[in-house]
Amino acid sequence: MKPTPPWQMARRAARMNPSIIREILKVTERPGIISLAGGLPSPDTFPVAAMREASERVLRDSPKEALQYAASEGYGPLREWVADELGGHGLQVDASQVLITTGSQQGLDLVGKVLIDAGSRVAVESPTYLGALQAFAPYEPEFLSVPCDDDGPLPDALELAAGCRFLYALPNFQNPSGRCMSASRRTELVAKAQAIGLPLLEDNPYGDLWFDAPPPPPLASRWHDGVVYLGSFSKVLAPGLRLGYVVAPKPLCPKLLQAKQAADLHTPGFNQRVVHEVIRNGFLRDHVPTIRARYQAQRDAMRAALERHMPAGCHWTVPRGGMFFWVELPEGTDALALLPHAVERGMAFVPGSAFYADHPKLNTLRLSFVTVAPDLIEHGIALLAQTLKERQ
Amino acid sequence: MKPTPPWQMARRAARMNPSIIREILKVTERPGIISLAGGLPSPDTFPVAAMREASERVLRDSPKEALQYAASEGYGPLREWVADELGGHGLQVDASQVLITTGSQQGLDLVGKVLIDAGSRVAVESPTYLGALQAFAPYEPEFLSVPCDDDGPLPDALELAAGCRFLYALPNFQNPSGRCMSASRRTELVAKAQAIGLPLLEDNPYGDLWFDAPPPPPLASRWHDGVVYLGSFSKVLAPGLRLGYVVAPKPLCPKLLQAKQAADLHTPGFNQRVVHEVIRNGFLRDHVPTIRARYQAQRDAMRAALERHMPAGCHWTVPRGGMFFWVELPEGTDALALLPHAVERGMAFVPGSAFYADHPKLNTLRLSFVTVAPDLIEHGIALLAQTLKERQ
Repeated sequence: MKPTPPWQMARRAARMNPSIIREILKVTERPGIISLAGGLPSPDTFPVAAMREASERVLRDSPKEALQYAASEGYGPLREWVADELGGHGLQVDASQVLITTGSQQGLDLVGKVLIDAGSRVAVESPTYLGALQAFAPYEPEFLSVPCDDDGPLPDALELAAGCRFLYALPNFQNPSGRCMSASRRTELVAKAQAIGLPLLEDNPYGDLWFDAPPPPPLASRWHDGVVYLGSFSKVLAPGLRLGYVVAPKPLCPKLLQAKQAADLHTPGFNQRVVHEVIRNGFLRDHVPTIRARYQAQRDAMRAALERHMPAGCHWTVPRGGMFFWVELPEGTDALALLPHAVERGMAFVPGSAFYADHPKLNTLRLSFVTVAPDLIEHGIALLAQTLKERQ
Repeated sequence: MKPTPPWQMARRAARMNPSIIREILKVTERPGIISLAGGLPSPDTFPVAAMREASERVLRDSPKEALQYAASEGYGPLREWVADELGGHGLQVDASQVLITTGSQQGLDLVGKVLIDAGSRVAVESPTYLGALQAFAPYEPEFLSVPCDDDGPLPDALELAAGCRFLYALPNFQNPSGRCMSASRRTELVAKAQAIGLPLLEDNPYGDLWFDAPPPPPLASRWHDGVVYLGSFSKVLAPGLRLGYVVAPKPLCPKLLQAKQAADLHTPGFNQRVVHEVIRNGFLRDHVPTIRARYQAQRDAMRAALERHMPAGCHWTVPRGGMFFWVELPEGTDALALLPHAVERGMAFVPGSAFYADHPKLNTLRLSFVTVAPDLIEHGIALLAQTLKERQ
């Protein structure tokens, strides 16, 4: 539907599109559909009791501060906490470099706003996180997909990205591919990026959700001046709080802060104080391992189901953390065309083509193992396999 | 400080600036300064007990829903509430036209993102709300200031704005001028805007804070297809929740929603549910009159103090609602140059020049009467008057 006169849309509006995932989720919210499409954390992991106590304490001890306008930078003690926490992951930063955002999605928007000009080039992984493409697109970049293997972007292919405003990378248990970049690939990638003067935007929503061993230190720890780092509380606490952060090299901080101020003045102070109250005494040290154990069991259930049911010619790599399996169907299979048939049978996935800036691999799909219980995972994968066999 | 290589900033970053108000507020946070500069609601009006009960209930009855990812449009029952509430103010809208935002500041950003091209023209009032200029500026419009009198934009001057993407107007107790547009001016303004095909962006954060009589129905009620309307819970509940909304003509809704999705996925569901829980049974009907009574008393205190202390040649109109007095100093006085001397004496205000897109009137200043108690208002105005007399 076009706007009736007198409205005239900005050119960038043509670059905005409904999220295909949200469109799929609408269909799959029908009762009876086993949806492996969503990227929703399991609500059983939400620390409701701790949240309740923290909310009570904040509204008892500092209600006026929590409910008043607050600094655009974020709540001081929470910024300190983030800086400390990152130090423990090998990333030494000052709290003054931490900007609290309304979810890490807002971090993507602010970085895009400050760094992307219409017609400038932005490099992304192949495949890449759909929400990042949506955040950047309104700033009208030309996207360049950097070829990747199971270990992430190929350093030699990085030459292609010379002159890009930045390379957006998600090194830990990437959404959608589930892959985790090795230490040696990180070293090579950063060395190459430094050599060609290519800044990096490192997104890390899933790094804490490792099953066997923690991922290697972040890219940002290897190049302090050349990497903007994004983090989130959505996967270790709860996404409905919309709490994330940007950690930027100091010269970028003032403009990111001004962009933040213009965007929503500040992230809700109440949420920031409640989360700080929950985590300040080491809560996550006990809580996050319970999420890992749960997700690992569900990962195992999905692995077993895939091995049991999927027809020959399908490939996947077992993720060592995060939330997703990435499946390659036999060459020539179109996952998007397959979806309605899978839904008819009672299950849903996300076609992989949604996750490419260009040259989509049509025979790929993403499966989440975290929202649905193991017995339903088993049944959902069986239905997917049946659909596949039937359509071949 | 410029970014070191390899960072290259987007051109729009040059249009972002630190908020002069926030810079002033930093100075005036020194203990002992009577600050009439802030635009902060009085924290004594925050309904802490109701918030505490509502948070408890939400985390008891629907914790998983409140803490999970949620719809970008906002929480259904809250959207319904907003549509009902606006109906009571003469604005008939469907809940599907209501988009919940992270404060109404985000509404300004989203409208700018969807409607402003670099080099396109945007009309604003003179003076106008500084935060709107900051939200729009990164989209690189040319601002056009429409001449105003004490009743708002002059309809005959609207010709100048023909071809602008929209006119941004704040009809109720405007920040900074405190003026409220009469019913007849609203009728004239909308008729003229319709005649020249000029869309309107109507911002209404202060409409509920009337002292004598409610303001006339919104501009949007007079031109459903031509007005985007912004509302906020910051002044009637608490700003730290960051909760506002955009109500748009239906053809604009899909793009605003996509812009919202890209910006932060959705406004925190927890906050939306808590606020809905607080207000759903008519809480504001009893609560808002207590805010009005408090602010009216403080307005009266400031009026009395201004009459008692200010030297001849100063002018102001007594606001009939909202939070601000707008003072014109004698011709030739520079309020910005006066500020450090006032701060030295122990009080602060915001120089009016901050609120103009162009051609600032240097002899103007804004005073807030809501944050500071009546006896301090009296003392603060006395200090301002002394500073003025001393510098003349």
